[in-house]
Amino acid sequence: MTAHTAEALALAQSACAHMFEADVASRITMGMSLMHCAPGEAQLQMTVTSNHVNGLGLCHGGFIFTLADSAFAFACNSRNQASVASGCSIEFLEASVLGDVLTAQATEQLVRGRAGVYDIRVSNQEGATIALFRGKSTAIKGTVLPV
Amino acid sequence: MTAHTAEALALAQSACAHMFEADVASRITMGMSLMHCAPGEAQLQMTVTSNHVNGLGLCHGGFIFTLADSAFAFACNSRNQASVASGCSIEFLEASVLGDVLTAQATEQLVRGRAGVYDIRVSNQEGATIALFRGKSTAIKGTVLPV
Amino acid sequence: MTAHTAEALALAQSACAHMFEADVASRITMGMSLMHCAPGEAQLQMTVTSNHVNGLGLCHGGFIFTLADSAFAFACNSRNQASVASGCSIEFLEASVLGDVLTAQATEQLVRGRAGVYDIRVSNQEGATIALFRGKSTAIKGTVLPV
Amino acid sequence: MTAHTAEALALAQSACAHMFEADVASRITMGMSLMHCAPGEAQLQMTVTSNHVNGLGLCHGGFIFTLADSAFAFACNSRNQASVASGCSIEFLEASVLGDVLTAQATEQLVRGRAGVYDIRVSNQEGATIALFRGKSTAIKGTVLPV
Repeated sequence: MTAHTAEALALAQSACAHMFEADVASRITMGMSLMHCAPGEAQLQMTVTSNHVNGLGLCHGGFIFTLADSAFAFACNSRNQASVASGCSIEFLEASVLGDVLTAQATEQLVRGRAGVYDIRVSNQEGATIALFRGKSTAIKGTVLPV
Repeated sequence: MTAHTAEALALAQSACAHMFEADVASRITMGMSLMHCAPGEAQLQMTVTSNHVNGLGLCHGGFIFTLADSAFAFACNSRNQASVASGCSIEFLEASVLGDVLTAQATEQLVRGRAGVYDIRVSNQEGATIALFRGKSTAIKGTVLPV
Repeated sequence: MTAHTAEALALAQSACAHMFEADVASRITMGMSLMHCAPGEAQLQMTVTSNHVNGLGLCHGGFIFTLADSAFAFACNSRNQASVASGCSIEFLEASVLGDVLTAQATEQLVRGRAGVYDIRVSNQEGATIALFRGKSTAIKGTVLPV
Repeated sequence: MTAHTAEALALAQSACAHMFEADVASRITMGMSLMHCAPGEAQLQMTVTSNHVNGLGLCHGGFIFTLADSAFAFACNSRNQASVASGCSIEFLEASVLGDVLTAQATEQLVRGRAGVYDIRVSNQEGATIALFRGKSTAIKGTVLPV
């Protein structure tokens, strides 16, 4: 991880805490925990419960995507510049079952003007990568924190 | 939509009904309804509730993906050949808010050996396309319906 | 294919002819032919020659992408509004060999504000689909035809 | 870059040299140079000439993809296990003009069974990233070097 100024780090943590508090979808419906946030970085964790299971007895791929997408959202909003996802892709590498603890780690690849590219790796409690996600963001008007 | 034999249609409907019954993630956690199923096709619907909302007051993009991903899963399993997603991409075109009724329509583009490509269009109650999803499937051993 | 006004069709054909004339990469280096152009649509053809072959004796996947990408460019510029690609994805389904005649057919899926999504199917002389390409465009300032 | 055994490095260099020699598309038609090869890594370079220019006076996006796709191919074949691309995506970040010297650096993200995921960064002579490419490979029967 890159070195950040104390100020940039504090801003990232405030912005992410503010977003997470308001994010019912990630926090309550999915049961995610915010583990780490820094400028351009975020880490989220989620345990696979019976709510997450699909017809094949596996964690719904959409929820693995959702975990990665949330980590992407926290990372691309961590500089307090409001940003939204324009497009994403995911490669599913391994299935995930009830009780697995999934961690999504988002890393900024590039910011150019209003566009950003972020890579998110989702791994399980054994450290195995189960999915690789790439997201493209667009900065919009406004800030994350109230002015 | 393509013409199907009565037999193929009945098999698709049985396979989808069987999957949907077991799919807690789609049916209960997300609140989806299975509207239509035919060989290579599926349509699912979901109303955006307070459970789906993220920190920006919008439907979490991960749940729009999840709706599309479920339609993809039903379509690629509709011939009773068990199949899983290997990779997916999504373009987000418009935001979605509380109360919106989202419909995902999955269409088979191509099946070649064990691989398949499916396109899913997600639209809202006004008929506006809010996301375009493309999924790539791989057939695995087994059937959807118990033998 | 959609019905177009004679005026829109004539504009598309002028814009595409103008672009194709200037496009050394597609016309000379790759040897493509422009078969058809209409608003939101384009069809290009290319024969696989010894120039296109990679180390495995097959048409370089990059050139299959390039054929699809050119069809995408003609389709998204066919309304005389200058546009560029922001991102693309391709699924490779079948290899292509020396002498194959490849056709790329681009179809507009959606235009929303400055963004557009186009699907391109690449098939060979037997009608088999060898690749599926999806491109996202952004309109920029200016027109294709000189004012 | 990771540390490799001398043996693995020598094998990668032999496999890449063998592929590059046979790869008319990359070596002659596109004018690429093979700069570096190691297990799971490859670096290729290409100068934008008048052959690469499209109707907008810019390097054809398909050729930027082709450069990245070649780096991907060299990286995923560098262990002498024959592999092909199954799907790729690219984000175009900046245009490239006549005379630019483009470098594609491929890095292995993951190999799992027969599947691999590789990230390729394409930069220009000023070090600016002009495109980010992600490729998914599948191992097939056979080796790169003749047995």
